[in-house]
Amino acid sequence: MFVQTNEHLNMKSDQVISPRVFFSSGHLNGEDVVYESKRLSELAGLFADRAAAEEMDGNLPVYEVYSWVPVPQGTEGGLFFGLTNLHPGLVGSEYFMTKGHFHAIENRGEYYWCIQGEGILLLMDKQRETRAERMFPGTLHYIPGYTAHRVVNTGSRTLRFGACWPSDAGYNYDPIAADGFSVRVRKVGKVPVLG
Amino acid sequence: MFVQTNEHLNMKSDQVISPRVFFSSGHLNGEDVVYESKRLSELAGLFADRAAAEEMDGNLPVYEVYSWVPVPQGTEGGLFFGLTNLHPGLVGSEYFMTKGHFHAIENRGEYYWCIQGEGILLLMDKQRETRAERMFPGTLHYIPGYTAHRVVNTGSRTLRFGACWPSDAGYNYDPIAADGFSVRVRKVGKVPVLG
Repeated sequence: MFVQTNEHLNMKSDQVISPRVFFSSGHLNGEDVVYESKRLSELAGLFADRAAAEEMDGNLPVYEVYSWVPVPQGTEGGLFFGLTNLHPGLVGSEYFMTKGHFHAIENRGEYYWCIQGEGILLLMDKQRETRAERMFPGTLHYIPGYTAHRVVNTGSRTLRFGACWPSDAGYNYDPIAADGFSVRVRKVGKVPVLG
Repeated sequence: MFVQTNEHLNMKSDQVISPRVFFSSGHLNGEDVVYESKRLSELAGLFADRAAAEEMDGNLPVYEVYSWVPVPQGTEGGLFFGLTNLHPGLVGSEYFMTKGHFHAIENRGEYYWCIQGEGILLLMDKQRETRAERMFPGTLHYIPGYTAHRVVNTGSRTLRFGACWPSDAGYNYDPIAADGFSVRVRKVGKVPVLG
């Protein structure tokens, strides 16, 4: 039995506990939360203009992910919950983006929802057909199974999005590491252009 | 290929489409969204004080659920996304609450996160041991497998919460319909008390 007086709610029961994790617009906060920062030096190979990447500070954070992992990786039937902050920036003319991946168990889906900023979600099937969905605050995106997913920040602010995915989905980064996505998103003049 | 000019982002690509579903604080909006309203007449049996329930207007909405169902119910590896508005109210001294359920595939988990209002999430295992977590804006709750879940609105505003769960989880309402939860939440004086 958990004992805690809940003064905030003026609640007197000894059976009511605080939640373990809090969700703000920018981060998850709690004891089971895992934080991961992805810096440009780890991601330079994603971008077409390697020379431009190498001239930049490799310590520059490109994105940060907070994940709540309440069950072990690989648990069937469980779920993970994430919050990603993808910073604005360019490598040459190409916008900052996430690595992108398929799931290791290929039929596993995922949700993304945009909290702040603007961007593009790239969705690529196994035949490398790619489609794209605009992200802005309030957009909700279903990523079906068998579909690689990458987020591109096309705005001037940090793009923040939530995510929920099965705890046995796993990650398959290899096809993306080898061949990338079939579409890149570049700034041409003032606008993002896919090609 | 999808053709749409994205004037909002000044985006010229013909490959970028609008998302299908939008998430606001109060509802999901989109073509694949299912809306369900639960009225008091359907829920009267949940409450201890049946006589009090029968004196009230059966058409009173207790809660409304918006769900995005992008894949068929029962799809392995897929996910559903929901938004629930649980209104404030009492039946006798007992707060308005959701029906509550186990999942039909029992090991399936779920996330809830509170957007507005205040309440209590009841989590009951198969041995009818119940624990409770406070809900208020920003709280994030992991509902493990084998665990019935019910939300109680202990505040004066509509309690809004998001949810994400596996599309093959299904619902098992029977144990709750037969025996309820082992804990009820009542207003005693001005505060919620579990018992």
